Amino acid sequence: MREDRILSELEELLGNKRIKYEQNTLSEFEVDYLENSKGKALALVLPNSATEISAIVRICNKYKIKYLARGGGTSLSGGSLPLDNCIIIDLSKMNRILQVNFNEQTVLAEPGVINIEITNVVDQKDLLFAPDPSSQHMCTVGGNIAHNAGGAHTIKYGVTTNHVLSVEIVLPNGEITNFGNGLVDGQGYDLLALINGSDGTLGIITKALLRVIPKPASSQTILLVFDRVKDASKTVSDIIRKGILPSALEMMDQIVIRAIEKSEYKVGIPVDAEAALLVEVDGRKTDVSIDVENIIQICNDNNVRTIQRAKDQKHAEKLWAARKSAFEVVGKQNENYIVQDGVIPRTMLPQTLEKIYEIGKKYDLPIANVFHAGDGNLHPLILFNGKIKKEKTNAIDASIEIIKICADAGGSITGEHGIGIEKVELMPYMFNKEDIELMTKIKMIFDPGLQCNPCKVLPSGSKCMELSAKARE
Amino acid sequence: MREDRILSELEELLGNKRIKYEQNTLSEFEVDYLENSKGKALALVLPNSATEISAIVRICNKYKIKYLARGGGTSLSGGSLPLDNCIIIDLSKMNRILQVNFNEQTVLAEPGVINIEITNVVDQKDLLFAPDPSSQHMCTVGGNIAHNAGGAHTIKYGVTTNHVLSVEIVLPNGEITNFGNGLVDGQGYDLLALINGSDGTLGIITKALLRVIPKPASSQTILLVFDRVKDASKTVSDIIRKGILPSALEMMDQIVIRAIEKSEYKVGIPVDAEAALLVEVDGRKTDVSIDVENIIQICNDNNVRTIQRAKDQKHAEKLWAARKSAFEVVGKQNENYIVQDGVIPRTMLPQTLEKIYEIGKKYDLPIANVFHAGDGNLHPLILFNGKIKKEKTNAIDASIEIIKICADAGGSITGEHGIGIEKVELMPYMFNKEDIELMTKIKMIFDPGLQCNPCKVLPSGSKCMELSAKARE
Repeated sequence: MREDRILSELEELLGNKRIKYEQNTLSEFEVDYLENSKGKALALVLPNSATEISAIVRICNKYKIKYLARGGGTSLSGGSLPLDNCIIIDLSKMNRILQVNFNEQTVLAEPGVINIEITNVVDQKDLLFAPDPSSQHMCTVGGNIAHNAGGAHTIKYGVTTNHVLSVEIVLPNGEITNFGNGLVDGQGYDLLALINGSDGTLGIITKALLRVIPKPASSQTILLVFDRVKDASKTVSDIIRKGILPSALEMMDQIVIRAIEKSEYKVGIPVDAEAALLVEVDGRKTDVSIDVENIIQICNDNNVRTIQRAKDQKHAEKLWAARKSAFEVVGKQNENYIVQDGVIPRTMLPQTLEKIYEIGKKYDLPIANVFHAGDGNLHPLILFNGKIKKEKTNAIDASIEIIKICADAGGSITGEHGIGIEKVELMPYMFNKEDIELMTKIKMIFDPGLQCNPCKVLPSGSKCMELSAKARE
Repeated sequence: MREDRILSELEELLGNKRIKYEQNTLSEFEVDYLENSKGKALALVLPNSATEISAIVRICNKYKIKYLARGGGTSLSGGSLPLDNCIIIDLSKMNRILQVNFNEQTVLAEPGVINIEITNVVDQKDLLFAPDPSSQHMCTVGGNIAHNAGGAHTIKYGVTTNHVLSVEIVLPNGEITNFGNGLVDGQGYDLLALINGSDGTLGIITKALLRVIPKPASSQTILLVFDRVKDASKTVSDIIRKGILPSALEMMDQIVIRAIEKSEYKVGIPVDAEAALLVEVDGRKTDVSIDVENIIQICNDNNVRTIQRAKDQKHAEKLWAARKSAFEVVGKQNENYIVQDGVIPRTMLPQTLEKIYEIGKKYDLPIANVFHAGDGNLHPLILFNGKIKKEKTNAIDASIEIIKICADAGGSITGEHGIGIEKVELMPYMFNKEDIELMTKIKMIFDPGLQCNPCKVLPSGSKCMELSAKARE
């Protein structure tokens, strides 16, 4: 049987300690953080090097078995769900930092390195790795690139693609090559840019040269509480319009505020307030003071209720812990939730929020909002009880309606979580036939057998639809 | 005859005023600023809209006639030379600014808009378009995107790709579509990134949504003169290592200094000095002062000879005029020159410059160097007399040797001028077989007939080699 033959060939390559096919072990890798979904894997392998990955890919090709790379499994879009009985190439052993160059301000890392470790290794020289998704203590460099991850600091420092200088990659034909020259300038078709945000469907990254940047000399965090959402939204627009570029500009609505204040993360936000903004500005001390004064002026013009300036680093960390706990506390206090990830032009914030609340009313489900307001990246949390079938269906329908609203507003169906399996069917809502056709042809160039992370990003035939529907049952 | 039929069909589409095929008129569009080269066009057409361009492309497809888009014709790499008797699609009538959105800080422009006009139109609100190639008074937005142009401010503000949010494009099959969603986040394979820097070989841009940014509150220009190149190079490295990010960091060597000081652009640099740096820092007034003090400290540690701080805006403009005149004054004072465009990692500056001077000695030709030191983008000018055949051959050989040195140093064969026809043959020196094959397949997806800006970037068969060799005779 084909399955037996591939397993014995993989075992021969890796030894029996680095291949797992017991259902118990596999189970935990057949899920990721996409609520209510489960894939199906044939085996999990633990390679040590690009050469081994290349050999694994060639073996998969020989037996026409599909495969996918797995980092932290935190995409939230099902990007790391194994579909169609495929091989999981787990990158947890490829977690070495290979080189730190303080002069050029770069770090060469393997794909399995945890995001926060990049900052940790350059911290001594006051440098940092800018992309900081909320999952930065679990998610990996490879996954960050595959999903072009953002984070609270995206507004000022950009997304992952802005911090990747080059990659080594195993192509689906098994060849090992490099994309990107590590320089800002340079030409040829930009293959590196194609890899960024491709959900791991065009190959497996085996090394990445990352840019690290100097830490700001100082920073100030401020928590601003508003009685009305509308005033908070207006404050966001006004801050940007005034030419202030905060290093973070986050918004939380009433449901989120209440969940935080009911938890151990509480920071004293009045629970009848409709919205709170958590703003951070960074730079030289004098600049930070000027920015803070300007922001407070803008807030006062927009009926701010209370202003809490972090007194010191510890206080700032406490305010950030509250914001970062949002998913966790909302999750604990409710049966289930779907977290959405859409993008809108910043100026559409008030209208879009209003429409999201209307959708909540329509489906009779509470929707909590916590998001990167500064770059228009929304994260609505649709709360439901999964045991009540009608609520679950409603939650999924509401979630899709929300994402369509984002696209209609001139935005995007996904910000930083990727397309995965969650949004494959929504691709035609955002991209026209011509664009999807070009993307499909690009996929076919890299991966003519459609074996690399199957059924993600592009709906490749009806079997994929079946498989992703099954995974989400 | 096929040629007659296509011409009459194009004339029917555009009227006889917007098609030119008299050899006299065509002649001036069969050259660009690549020294000593000339293409061959069948006709030149002047479309008014994306719809017309789509119709032109479809007519070209019907008759299997090649075509290329032309903006300012200033790529310097032969990117806008018409090869293989093709149709020139001149974009000079598509030079409208369609929309200015001060809230979102964007400008929607047609491809024929001159670079500087983007800044001019937002200047009233203290915004600017960051990419500023030396040719910014002649080059166009479409060309900037096609070649992913940089400029003196690339070190701080990045290249064109960092400032393009979306494009409308006519694909080689005649379809009109959009790439990019105008947002920082968002996913799907990044087709916009493929277009940036593709030398106009994947389609014709018909609209671009550009990001404009707030003007810095203040800036300071300083001219630093050094007796020795080595000290100037060290200063460049030390500035960056100290965490200072100048808005421009340019270097000129002795030949350039002498040429400037012999011209009306002279600014009083001692002509026995080996190198001068022109540094600009921008930001808030207090920041600028701190940066300037730190830079002066670094210079003093590196044996600076004289320091000239711009007293006011007019003085700063005079210093910049001197730097920007470099190509012009060297050109006027010498028979011919080839300007090269290579990139090296910043830390390789001293060694690479030394090697470039050695090449000059080897071929017995003076080589002048003026370049964007901060981002390692070199522009060596190889001086020769075109009437002496041996000198011309030597200049071309020296030029190729220099570019190979850049690639060997871990850099790139081109920074901001593109591959064009000049460097097609050098592609395999920088990219491996696998990468070139992927790029060729991508080209074939977009343009299976190889009709769109033929023979640029990728060597598509021996006929192209012949044609580009002929163009450069």
